[in-house]
Amino acid sequence: METPYYLYDMNLLESTLTQAQTAADLYNMKLMYAIKANTNKRVLEKIKSYGFGIDAVSIGEIELAIECGFLPNQIVFAGSGKTKREISRALEYGIAVLHCESIQEWDYISSIYTNDCPTQIALRINPNVSVDTHANIQTGGENHKFGVSIREAHDLIERLLQENASLLPCGFHFHVGSQITQMDFFEDMSIAVNRFLSSLPSNFEFNYLNLGGGLGINYNDPETDCMPNFVGWMRAIRPHFSTERFPVIHLEPGRSLVGQSGKIIAEVLYVKDRPGEKIAILDAGMNDLMRPALYEARHLVTIHQAISHNQTIENYTVAGPSCESTDTFGKNFRLPVLQTGEQVAIHSCGAYAESMRLDYNQRGKAACVYLETPAVNYVGKESSVEMVNAE
Amino acid sequence: METPYYLYDMNLLESTLTQAQTAADLYNMKLMYAIKANTNKRVLEKIKSYGFGIDAVSIGEIELAIECGFLPNQIVFAGSGKTKREISRALEYGIAVLHCESIQEWDYISSIYTNDCPTQIALRINPNVSVDTHANIQTGGENHKFGVSIREAHDLIERLLQENASLLPCGFHFHVGSQITQMDFFEDMSIAVNRFLSSLPSNFEFNYLNLGGGLGINYNDPETDCMPNFVGWMRAIRPHFSTERFPVIHLEPGRSLVGQSGKIIAEVLYVKDRPGEKIAILDAGMNDLMRPALYEARHLVTIHQAISHNQTIENYTVAGPSCESTDTFGKNFRLPVLQTGEQVAIHSCGAYAESMRLDYNQRGKAACVYLETPAVNYVGKESSVEMVNAE
Repeated sequence: METPYYLYDMNLLESTLTQAQTAADLYNMKLMYAIKANTNKRVLEKIKSYGFGIDAVSIGEIELAIECGFLPNQIVFAGSGKTKREISRALEYGIAVLHCESIQEWDYISSIYTNDCPTQIALRINPNVSVDTHANIQTGGENHKFGVSIREAHDLIERLLQENASLLPCGFHFHVGSQITQMDFFEDMSIAVNRFLSSLPSNFEFNYLNLGGGLGINYNDPETDCMPNFVGWMRAIRPHFSTERFPVIHLEPGRSLVGQSGKIIAEVLYVKDRPGEKIAILDAGMNDLMRPALYEARHLVTIHQAISHNQTIENYTVAGPSCESTDTFGKNFRLPVLQTGEQVAIHSCGAYAESMRLDYNQRGKAACVYLETPAVNYVGKESSVEMVNAE
Repeated sequence: METPYYLYDMNLLESTLTQAQTAADLYNMKLMYAIKANTNKRVLEKIKSYGFGIDAVSIGEIELAIECGFLPNQIVFAGSGKTKREISRALEYGIAVLHCESIQEWDYISSIYTNDCPTQIALRINPNVSVDTHANIQTGGENHKFGVSIREAHDLIERLLQENASLLPCGFHFHVGSQITQMDFFEDMSIAVNRFLSSLPSNFEFNYLNLGGGLGINYNDPETDCMPNFVGWMRAIRPHFSTERFPVIHLEPGRSLVGQSGKIIAEVLYVKDRPGEKIAILDAGMNDLMRPALYEARHLVTIHQAISHNQTIENYTVAGPSCESTDTFGKNFRLPVLQTGEQVAIHSCGAYAESMRLDYNQRGKAACVYLETPAVNYVGKESSVEMVNAE
């Protein structure tokens, strides 16, 4: 099998989807998969088979979801930069809910909205809650581009009530960050959401509440902790909202559903001795996985297929093949002696890897391999591998 | 014309190529275009028509260049992560020079090399010269992944001479960083290169010298300073190397040849008021231009097509439409009052914009527009625009 390739463990994906759905049933949550995390069609079909909806951020994502069999009424649409064309098309498709992110956007939607349209319009609120995560994946601060401020929401709703407007927000959408593993953060967010909801005029009726995504995964130790804490996430949120008032709350998991089910398998091309370290150059790079270059994200690297079986531990910088200093997976990886031809696994590549790949340096798209055997032990089990070539 | 689109000024490209080639003729340099900067076929055809060679970093780039009409003997191939397949294919094509970047790579090439192969093999040397540029685009330090160290080069050459090896390096390749605008740096590099060359065994013969690229462009003021300092670059290098000993020296400009000839034209979708600033959300984003997210690079933004003509200057954060906090072009842009529907130009997008684009968020590929009228004044001159749709 030619490296590099994305290796999807469809069994782990199924287990993850099952656990997420079980938790959602227990806590009366509706799960809308944040499709930007991974747009691989086999992954999407699996997610569809579990009955999840879709959280899309462009008309391209909406159309991809429809192409994969999701019904428009299972799709919600967020994004601070929707074009007029995207808004019109989404309403024509009759998606479930459009999350409006600015007053200008609201006014445009109002100007084209007709009452026979099945799509409901919610407001995305920027609750000004700070998240202890990488600055690049924070989205809920008051100076971020997402959503409308609490003040803007109040002003809009008062105006619409005064005008006796035919279109009113069906409810609210919040999303305050990514890769959150401290559950008390979700409690804090819920308190902030409730504070906002209870500040609304008593004559304003709404029924929709979407508390976004953000649940993190364990990038440090994905082998022993491959399952995100879905129960903890929902338990931190649900007690803050009565099931009478909100029979169903929408959530938008992305990374947590797919992140641990993918790896990149790469070959060690060269090992270079440098002062104080060795550099292992792989045939996978930033074109296959942008996160280390973009967010300084750290992914676990382990031996996938050894040649030497020399167990001496050494200190490696692991780099990709592109002609860019940014094309590195990081420093100080403690790994058994690496040699040319050995294969390594880069873990936690199910989310924001294939969907963020690029053609830079004309390296071509890595193939995708899907493991589907129940209870698979996939190290070296080529017989259980079904290969699908790059599109 | 639907936004966003890449707008290529083919006249500026021609002027730039002419100036570069004129300087190269004056200083006895051979220019090999670093194709990773921009792989747009119309741009490549123009570059080909000026007689430039190609600096490629993957077999994909080599094959793209051949497809565009470049002859294999006009192509050199560098890259610290060449696969065996890439090396074999490059030798089969008979490219001009392969820049070997490690001892392991040398030994592999030796094992398959036959003397009827027209390709010469050079060594890329990591000269341990520090560059005053963004850490992410430095490539010449001793702990970088590129090339072989001076010590490794000496050891290899001594070994090959002792073995009376049939394959010897034809010469050396150096490339020490990108976006360098201080010409004295190129002098320092030349001194370091000479120090290395004069340390080689006297019985080792070589004839090839490639001093890489690295010439920067003016991202701050591309409108009044659109022409890179080709003469300054070559004048800083050439006096250090006699034309008798080195009748021709290879250089590998990428960004400097194409960077200023491209812009991204985008529409303002929304303007948000935030404490202390306004946020202008464009329909172009990190999927069209990765450099701000990846390197914190700053590109000039100006009004391209105004609606309000309100000249009051305000302070803007300029952001893209993707659901990522990283999708921003930066803060504190001083711009005339922006409103929805106005078009802005993001400057200096001829290099590392289209070639680094990605499909993230399923936004689709922006179209390319080529301006070819001589002495064009392209603001609003739709009549001089030839549109080519996205591939």
